[in-house]
Amino acid sequence: MVKQERALRTRQALIRAGAELFAREGFVAASLSTISGEAGVSNGALHFHFENKRALARAVEDEALARLRRITAESLERDGRALPALVDATYELVDRIAEDVVVRAGFGLGDDPGRGEAASLRREWRYWVEDSVRRAERDGWLARGVPAADAVTAVVAATVGFEVLGGEDEAWLSRDRVTGFWRLLLPRLTDRHALVIAVSGR
Amino acid sequence: MVKQERALRTRQALIRAGAELFAREGFVAASLSTISGEAGVSNGALHFHFENKRALARAVEDEALARLRRITAESLERDGRALPALVDATYELVDRIAEDVVVRAGFGLGDDPGRGEAASLRREWRYWVEDSVRRAERDGWLARGVPAADAVTAVVAATVGFEVLGGEDEAWLSRDRVTGFWRLLLPRLTDRHALVIAVSGR
Repeated sequence: MVKQERALRTRQALIRAGAELFAREGFVAASLSTISGEAGVSNGALHFHFENKRALARAVEDEALARLRRITAESLERDGRALPALVDATYELVDRIAEDVVVRAGFGLGDDPGRGEAASLRREWRYWVEDSVRRAERDGWLARGVPAADAVTAVVAATVGFEVLGGEDEAWLSRDRVTGFWRLLLPRLTDRHALVIAVSGR
Repeated sequence: MVKQERALRTRQALIRAGAELFAREGFVAASLSTISGEAGVSNGALHFHFENKRALARAVEDEALARLRRITAESLERDGRALPALVDATYELVDRIAEDVVVRAGFGLGDDPGRGEAASLRREWRYWVEDSVRRAERDGWLARGVPAADAVTAVVAATVGFEVLGGEDEAWLSRDRVTGFWRLLLPRLTDRHALVIAVSGR
Protein backbone atom coordinates (compact mmCIF):
# COMPACT_ATOMS: atom_id res chain seq x y z
CA MET A 1 0.00 0.00 0.00
CA VAL A 2 2.78 2.41 0.99
CA LYS A 3 4.73 1.17 -2.01
CA GLN A 4 1.76 1.80 -4.33
CA GLU A 5 1.39 5.28 -2.93
CA ARG A 6 5.05 6.02 -3.54
CA ALA A 7 4.77 4.71 -7.11
CA LEU A 8 1.77 6.97 -7.70
CA ARG A 9 3.62 9.95 -6.30
CA THR A 10 6.63 9.22 -8.54
CA ARG A 11 4.38 8.96 -11.55
CA GLN A 12 2.79 12.32 -10.75
CA ALA A 13 6.21 13.94 -10.23
CA LEU A 14 7.32 12.66 -13.65
CA ILE A 15 4.18 13.96 -15.33
CA ARG A 16 4.73 17.35 -13.74
CA ALA A 17 8.44 17.49 -14.66
CA GLY A 18 7.60 16.28 -18.18
CA ALA A 19 4.97 18.99 -18.52
CA GLU A 20 7.48 21.65 -17.38
CA LEU A 21 10.04 20.57 -19.96
CA PHE A 22 7.59 20.01 -22.82
CA ALA A 23 6.13 23.47 -22.21
CA ARG A 24 9.56 25.08 -22.05
CA GLU A 25 11.51 23.25 -24.78
CA GLY A 26 8.97 21.36 -26.88
CA PHE A 27 8.59 17.63 -27.37
CA VAL A 28 11.63 16.95 -29.55
CA ALA A 29 14.16 18.93 -27.49
CA ALA A 30 12.95 17.73 -24.06
CA SER A 31 15.38 15.15 -22.71
CA LEU A 32 14.21 12.22 -20.59
CA SER A 33 17.26 12.41 -18.31
CA THR A 34 16.55 16.09 -17.58
CA ILE A 35 12.94 15.15 -16.80
CA SER A 36 13.89 12.35 -14.40
CA GLY A 37 16.47 14.68 -12.81
CA GLU A 38 13.88 17.42 -12.27
CA ALA A 39 11.44 14.87 -10.86
CA GLY A 40 14.16 13.69 -8.47
CA VAL A 41 14.04 10.07 -9.64
CA SER A 42 16.41 7.77 -11.53
CA ASN A 43 16.26 7.09 -15.27
CA GLY A 44 15.28 3.54 -14.36
CA ALA A 45 12.29 4.76 -12.39
CA LEU A 46 11.20 6.87 -15.34
CA HIS A 47 11.38 3.89 -17.67
CA PHE A 48 9.50 1.75 -15.16
CA HIS A 49 6.57 4.18 -15.47
CA PHE A 50 6.87 5.27 -19.11
CA GLU A 51 8.18 3.23 -22.00
CA ASN A 52 9.42 6.28 -23.89
CA LYS A 53 8.98 10.04 -24.31
CA ARG A 54 5.88 9.53 -26.42
CA ALA A 55 4.23 7.59 -23.59
CA LEU A 56 5.13 10.30 -21.08
CA ALA A 57 3.72 13.00 -23.39
CA ARG A 58 0.51 11.00 -23.71
CA ALA A 59 0.29 10.75 -19.91
CA VAL A 60 0.74 14.55 -19.62
CA GLU A 61 -1.99 15.04 -22.21
CA ASP A 62 -4.34 12.55 -20.49
CA GLU A 63 -3.86 14.27 -17.14
CA ALA A 64 -4.45 17.69 -18.76
CA LEU A 65 -7.57 16.33 -20.44
CA ALA A 66 -8.90 15.08 -17.08
CA ARG A 67 -8.31 18.53 -15.58
CA LEU A 68 -10.00 20.26 -18.51
CA ARG A 69 -13.03 18.00 -18.05
CA ARG A 70 -13.10 18.93 -14.37
CA ILE A 71 -13.12 22.64 -15.31
CA THR A 72 -16.09 22.27 -17.64
CA ALA A 73 -17.95 19.95 -15.25
CA GLU A 74 -17.48 22.35 -12.34
CA SER A 75 -18.67 25.31 -14.41
CA LEU A 76 -21.82 23.38 -15.21
CA GLU A 77 -22.26 22.50 -11.53
CA ARG A 78 -21.96 26.15 -10.51
CA ASP A 79 -24.55 27.23 -13.06
CA GLY A 80 -26.56 24.59 -14.84
CA ARG A 81 -27.55 26.95 -17.65
CA ALA A 82 -25.43 26.47 -20.73
CA LEU A 83 -24.42 30.04 -21.61
CA PRO A 84 -23.45 31.21 -18.10
CA ALA A 85 -21.52 27.95 -17.66
CA LEU A 86 -19.69 28.53 -20.94
CA VAL A 87 -18.70 32.05 -19.92
CA ASP A 88 -17.60 30.78 -16.50
CA ALA A 89 -15.54 27.97 -18.05
CA THR A 90 -13.57 30.40 -20.24
CA TYR A 91 -12.47 32.30 -17.13
CA GLU A 92 -11.52 29.09 -15.35
CA LEU A 93 -9.70 27.85 -18.43
CA VAL A 94 -7.39 30.86 -18.77
CA ASP A 95 -6.75 30.80 -15.01
CA ARG A 96 -5.72 27.17 -15.19
CA ILE A 97 -3.58 27.61 -18.29
CA ALA A 98 -1.77 30.42 -16.48
CA GLU A 99 -1.30 28.51 -13.21
CA ASP A 100 -1.12 24.82 -14.05
CA VAL A 101 1.79 23.72 -16.20
CA VAL A 102 0.17 20.33 -16.89
CA VAL A 103 -2.86 21.99 -18.50
CA ARG A 104 -0.62 24.44 -20.37
CA ALA A 105 1.68 21.67 -21.64
CA GLY A 106 -1.33 19.53 -22.57
CA PHE A 107 -2.59 22.24 -24.93
CA GLY A 108 0.92 22.95 -26.25
CA LEU A 109 1.63 19.29 -27.03
CA GLY A 110 -1.32 19.22 -29.41
CA ASP A 111 0.32 21.98 -31.42
CA ASP A 112 3.86 20.57 -31.36
CA PRO A 113 4.83 19.64 -34.94
CA GLY A 114 7.74 17.53 -33.66
CA ARG A 115 5.28 15.19 -31.99
CA GLY A 116 2.85 14.77 -34.85
CA GLU A 117 -0.24 13.76 -32.90
CA ALA A 118 -3.70 15.27 -32.97
CA ALA A 119 -4.53 18.11 -30.60
CA SER A 120 -6.82 16.29 -28.20
CA LEU A 121 -7.30 19.14 -25.69
CA ARG A 122 -8.34 21.69 -28.27
CA ARG A 123 -10.69 19.16 -29.80
CA GLU A 124 -12.26 18.38 -26.42
CA TRP A 125 -12.67 22.09 -25.71
CA ARG A 126 -14.22 22.69 -29.13
CA TYR A 127 -16.73 19.84 -28.61
CA TRP A 128 -17.70 21.28 -25.25
CA VAL A 129 -18.18 24.80 -26.66
CA GLU A 130 -20.28 23.36 -29.51
CA ASP A 131 -22.39 21.44 -27.07
CA SER A 132 -22.85 24.45 -24.77
CA VAL A 133 -23.86 26.76 -27.61
CA ARG A 134 -26.32 24.22 -28.97
CA ARG A 135 -27.89 23.86 -25.53
CA ALA A 136 -27.99 27.64 -25.09
CA GLU A 137 -29.79 27.92 -28.41
CA ARG A 138 -32.28 25.21 -27.51
CA ASP A 139 -32.98 26.90 -24.19
CA GLY A 140 -33.69 30.21 -25.91
CA TRP A 141 -30.57 31.97 -24.68
CA LEU A 142 -29.18 32.94 -28.09
CA ALA A 143 -30.36 36.26 -29.51
CA ARG A 144 -32.54 36.00 -32.59
CA GLY A 145 -30.63 35.91 -35.89
CA VAL A 146 -27.38 34.73 -34.33
CA PRO A 147 -26.27 31.48 -35.98
CA ALA A 148 -25.01 29.03 -33.36
CA ALA A 149 -22.12 28.09 -35.67
CA ASP A 150 -20.86 31.69 -35.66
CA ALA A 151 -20.90 31.74 -31.87
CA VAL A 152 -18.90 28.51 -31.76
CA THR A 153 -16.39 29.88 -34.27
CA ALA A 154 -15.84 33.11 -32.33
CA VAL A 155 -15.58 31.49 -28.89
CA VAL A 156 -13.32 28.61 -29.94
CA ALA A 157 -11.02 30.80 -32.06
CA ALA A 158 -10.68 33.48 -29.37
CA THR A 159 -10.05 31.07 -26.49
CA VAL A 160 -7.43 29.17 -28.49
CA GLY A 161 -5.92 32.57 -29.30
CA PHE A 162 -5.77 33.43 -25.57
CA GLU A 163 -4.08 30.10 -24.86
CA VAL A 164 -1.44 30.52 -27.58
CA LEU A 165 -0.79 34.23 -27.04
CA GLY A 166 -0.52 33.55 -23.29
CA GLY A 167 2.59 31.46 -23.99
CA GLU A 168 4.39 34.64 -25.00
CA ASP A 169 2.68 37.21 -22.80
CA GLU A 170 0.82 36.27 -19.60
CA ALA A 171 -1.46 39.31 -19.91
CA TRP A 172 -3.47 37.28 -22.44
CA LEU A 173 -4.36 34.88 -19.63
CA SER A 174 -5.78 37.59 -17.37
CA ARG A 175 -9.44 37.89 -16.42
CA ASP A 176 -9.39 41.45 -17.84
CA ARG A 177 -8.71 40.16 -21.34
CA VAL A 178 -11.45 37.53 -21.08
CA THR A 179 -13.85 40.18 -19.79
CA GLY A 180 -12.94 42.43 -22.72
CA PHE A 181 -13.84 39.66 -25.13
CA TRP A 182 -17.17 38.82 -23.46
CA ARG A 183 -18.09 42.49 -22.94
CA LEU A 184 -17.85 42.89 -26.68
CA LEU A 185 -19.44 39.62 -27.74
CA LEU A 186 -22.15 38.87 -25.17
CA PRO A 187 -24.57 41.76 -25.92
CA ARG A 188 -24.65 40.46 -29.50
CA LEU A 189 -24.97 36.83 -28.46
CA THR A 190 -27.77 37.06 -25.94
CA ASP A 191 -30.55 39.36 -24.75
CA ARG A 192 -30.14 38.21 -21.14
CA HIS A 193 -28.84 41.44 -19.72
CA ALA A 194 -28.10 40.00 -16.30
CA LEU A 195 -25.40 37.82 -17.81
CA VAL A 196 -23.98 40.73 -19.77
CA ILE A 197 -23.82 42.89 -16.64
CA ALA A 198 -22.36 40.05 -14.56
CA VAL A 199 -19.49 39.74 -17.01
CA SER A 200 -18.89 43.47 -17.17
CA GLY A 201 -18.59 43.51 -13.39
CA ARG A 202 -15.91 40.81 -13.23
CA MET B 1 24.43 38.99 -63.24
CA VAL B 2 23.29 35.49 -64.27
CA LYS B 3 25.29 34.13 -61.33
CA GLN B 4 23.62 36.55 -58.93
CA GLU B 5 20.22 35.56 -60.24
CA ARG B 6 20.99 31.89 -59.72
CA ALA B 7 22.19 32.59 -56.17
CA LEU B 8 18.98 34.46 -55.43
CA ARG B 9 16.90 31.61 -56.81
CA THR B 10 18.83 29.07 -54.70
CA ARG B 11 18.28 31.21 -51.61
CA GLN B 12 14.54 31.38 -52.31
CA ALA B 13 14.38 27.59 -52.89
CA LEU B 14 16.11 27.01 -49.54
CA ILE B 15 13.72 29.37 -47.73
CA ARG B 16 10.77 27.56 -49.27
CA ALA B 17 12.12 24.08 -48.46
CA GLY B 18 13.01 25.25 -44.94
CA ALA B 19 9.50 26.60 -44.46
CA GLU B 20 8.01 23.28 -45.62
CA LEU B 21 10.08 21.31 -43.15
CA PHE B 22 9.73 23.71 -40.23
CA ALA B 23 5.95 23.72 -40.71
CA ARG B 24 5.81 19.92 -40.95
CA GLU B 25 8.32 18.81 -38.32
CA GLY B 26 9.11 21.83 -36.18
CA PHE B 27 12.41 23.65 -35.75
CA VAL B 28 14.30 21.06 -33.68
CA ALA B 29 13.41 18.01 -35.78
CA ALA B 30 13.94 19.65 -39.18
CA SER B 31 17.23 18.45 -40.66
CA LEU B 32 19.40 20.71 -42.80
CA SER B 33 20.36 17.88 -45.18
CA THR B 34 16.68 17.10 -45.82
CA ILE B 35 16.10 20.80 -46.51
CA SER B 36 18.98 21.07 -48.99
CA GLY B 37 17.78 17.83 -50.60
CA GLU B 38 14.25 19.14 -51.02
CA ALA B 39 15.59 22.41 -52.39
CA GLY B 40 17.67 20.41 -54.89
CA VAL B 41 20.99 21.91 -53.80
CA SER B 42 24.09 20.61 -52.02
CA ASN B 43 24.76 20.95 -48.29
CA GLY B 44 27.63 23.26 -49.24
CA ALA B 45 25.25 25.55 -51.10
CA LEU B 46 22.96 25.69 -48.07
CA HIS B 47 25.87 26.65 -45.82
CA PHE B 48 27.02 29.25 -48.31
CA HIS B 49 23.65 31.00 -47.87
CA PHE B 50 22.86 30.23 -44.22
CA GLU B 51 25.36 29.77 -41.41
CA ASN B 52 23.07 27.38 -39.50
CA LYS B 53 19.47 26.30 -38.98
CA ARG B 54 18.78 29.32 -36.80
CA ALA B 55 19.84 31.66 -39.61
CA LEU B 56 17.62 29.80 -42.09
CA ALA B 57 14.66 30.01 -39.69
CA ARG B 58 15.26 33.74 -39.31
CA ALA B 59 15.27 34.12 -43.10
CA VAL B 60 11.94 32.22 -43.32
CA GLU B 61 10.50 34.50 -40.66
CA ASP B 62 11.83 37.66 -42.35
CA GLU B 63 10.34 36.61 -45.67
CA ALA B 64 7.01 35.79 -43.97
CA LEU B 65 7.08 39.17 -42.23
CA ALA B 66 7.61 40.94 -45.56
CA ARG B 67 4.63 39.06 -47.02
CA LEU B 68 2.46 39.89 -43.99
CA ARG B 69 3.32 43.57 -44.42
CA ARG B 70 2.34 43.34 -48.06
CA ILE B 71 -1.04 41.89 -47.05
CA THR B 72 -1.80 44.74 -44.65
CA ALA B 73 -0.45 47.41 -47.03
CA GLU B 74 -2.57 46.09 -49.90
CA SER B 75 -5.70 45.97 -47.73
CA LEU B 76 -5.14 49.62 -46.89
CA GLU B 77 -4.61 50.43 -50.57
CA ARG B 78 -7.88 48.75 -51.54
CA ASP B 79 -9.80 50.66 -48.88
CA GLY B 80 -8.11 53.53 -47.09
CA ARG B 81 -10.60 53.44 -44.21
CA ALA B 82 -9.24 51.61 -41.19
CA LEU B 83 -12.09 49.27 -40.28
CA PRO B 84 -12.90 47.98 -43.79
CA ALA B 85 -9.15 47.52 -44.35
CA LEU B 86 -8.88 45.54 -41.12
CA VAL B 87 -11.75 43.26 -42.10
CA ASP B 88 -10.26 42.81 -45.56
CA ALA B 89 -6.83 41.99 -44.14
CA THR B 90 -8.22 39.19 -41.94
CA TYR B 91 -9.63 37.49 -45.06
CA GLU B 92 -6.35 37.89 -46.93
CA LEU B 93 -4.41 36.65 -43.92
CA VAL B 94 -6.26 33.35 -43.59
CA ASP B 95 -6.05 32.85 -47.37
CA ARG B 96 -2.32 33.31 -47.28
CA ILE B 97 -1.80 31.11 -44.24
CA ALA B 98 -3.72 28.39 -46.07
CA GLU B 99 -1.88 28.78 -49.37
CA ASP B 100 1.61 30.03 -48.62
CA VAL B 101 3.83 27.73 -46.59
CA VAL B 102 6.33 30.53 -45.93
CA VAL B 103 3.68 32.65 -44.19
CA ARG B 104 2.35 29.59 -42.34
CA ALA B 105 5.83 28.53 -41.18
CA GLY B 106 6.65 32.12 -40.21
CA PHE B 107 3.74 32.17 -37.77
CA GLY B 108 4.49 28.66 -36.53
CA LEU B 109 8.16 29.40 -35.84
CA GLY B 110 7.14 32.10 -33.38
CA ASP B 111 5.31 29.48 -31.36
CA ASP B 112 8.00 26.78 -31.56
CA PRO B 113 9.32 26.19 -28.03
CA GLY B 114 12.37 24.36 -29.42
CA ARG B 115 13.51 27.56 -31.10
CA GLY B 116 13.04 29.90 -28.19
CA GLU B 117 12.70 33.19 -30.07
CA ALA B 118 9.97 35.80 -29.85
CA ALA B 119 6.94 35.49 -32.12
CA SER B 120 7.65 38.34 -34.49
CA LEU B 121 4.76 37.70 -36.91
CA ARG B 122 2.08 37.62 -34.25
CA ARG B 123 3.54 40.75 -32.70
CA GLU B 124 3.55 42.56 -36.05
CA TRP B 125 -0.04 41.50 -36.67
CA ARG B 126 -1.13 42.65 -33.20
CA TYR B 127 0.50 46.06 -33.71
CA TRP B 128 -1.30 46.45 -37.01
CA VAL B 129 -4.68 45.49 -35.51
CA GLU B 130 -4.10 47.94 -32.64
CA ASP B 131 -3.22 50.70 -35.06
CA SER B 132 -6.24 49.96 -37.28
CA VAL B 133 -8.70 49.93 -34.36
CA ARG B 134 -7.28 53.17 -32.99
CA ARG B 135 -7.67 54.82 -36.38
CA ALA B 136 -11.20 53.44 -36.73
CA GLU B 137 -12.05 54.93 -33.36
CA ARG B 138 -10.56 58.29 -34.26
CA ASP B 139 -12.50 58.34 -37.53
CA GLY B 140 -15.77 57.66 -35.72
CA TRP B 141 -16.21 54.12 -37.00
CA LEU B 142 -16.46 52.41 -33.62
CA ALA B 143 -19.92 52.16 -32.10
CA ARG B 144 -20.45 54.21 -28.97
CA GLY B 145 -19.53 52.43 -25.73
CA VAL B 146 -17.21 49.93 -27.39
CA PRO B 147 -13.73 50.15 -25.84
CA ALA B 148 -11.07 50.00 -28.55
CA ALA B 149 -9.00 47.66 -26.33
CA ASP B 150 -11.82 45.09 -26.31
CA ALA B 151 -11.99 45.18 -30.10
CA VAL B 152 -8.23 44.61 -30.33
CA THR B 153 -8.45 41.71 -27.86
CA ALA B 154 -11.25 39.98 -29.76
CA VAL B 155 -9.76 40.44 -33.23
CA VAL B 156 -6.19 39.47 -32.30
CA ALA B 157 -7.24 36.45 -30.22
CA ALA B 158 -9.65 35.15 -32.86
CA THR B 159 -7.27 35.57 -35.80
CA VAL B 160 -4.43 33.86 -33.92
CA GLY B 161 -6.94 31.13 -33.09
CA PHE B 162 -7.79 30.73 -36.79
CA GLU B 163 -4.10 30.49 -37.61
CA VAL B 164 -3.37 27.83 -34.96
CA LEU B 165 -6.54 25.79 -35.46
CA GLY B 166 -5.92 25.89 -39.22
CA GLY B 167 -2.77 23.84 -38.66
CA GLU B 168 -4.96 20.91 -37.62
CA ASP B 169 -8.05 21.52 -39.73
CA GLU B 170 -8.00 23.64 -42.90
CA ALA B 171 -11.68 24.55 -42.47
CA TRP B 172 -10.53 27.16 -39.94
CA LEU B 173 -8.75 28.97 -42.75
CA SER B 174 -11.86 29.24 -44.92
CA ARG B 175 -13.61 32.52 -45.76
CA ASP B 176 -16.81 31.05 -44.26
CA ARG B 177 -15.28 30.86 -40.80
CA VAL B 178 -13.93 34.40 -41.05
CA THR B 179 -17.34 35.61 -42.23
CA GLY B 180 -18.97 33.83 -39.27
CA PHE B 181 -16.72 35.71 -36.90
CA TRP B 182 -17.29 39.13 -38.47
CA ARG B 183 -21.03 38.54 -38.91
CA LEU B 184 -21.20 38.10 -35.16
CA LEU B 185 -18.78 40.83 -34.13
CA LEU B 186 -19.24 43.66 -36.62
CA PRO B 187 -22.82 44.73 -35.74
CA ARG B 188 -21.54 45.24 -32.19
CA LEU B 189 -18.37 47.00 -33.30
CA THR B 190 -19.75 49.52 -35.73
CA ASP B 191 -22.99 51.21 -36.81
CA ARG B 192 -21.86 51.34 -40.43
CA HIS B 193 -24.38 48.93 -41.85
CA ALA B 194 -22.84 48.90 -45.30
CA LEU B 195 -19.74 47.23 -43.92
CA VAL B 196 -21.80 44.71 -41.97
CA ILE B 197 -23.81 43.81 -45.06
CA ALA B 198 -20.69 43.62 -47.23
CA VAL B 199 -19.21 41.05 -44.87
CA SER B 200 -22.41 39.03 -44.67
CA GLY B 201 -22.40 38.80 -48.45
CA ARG B 202 -18.88 37.41 -48.68
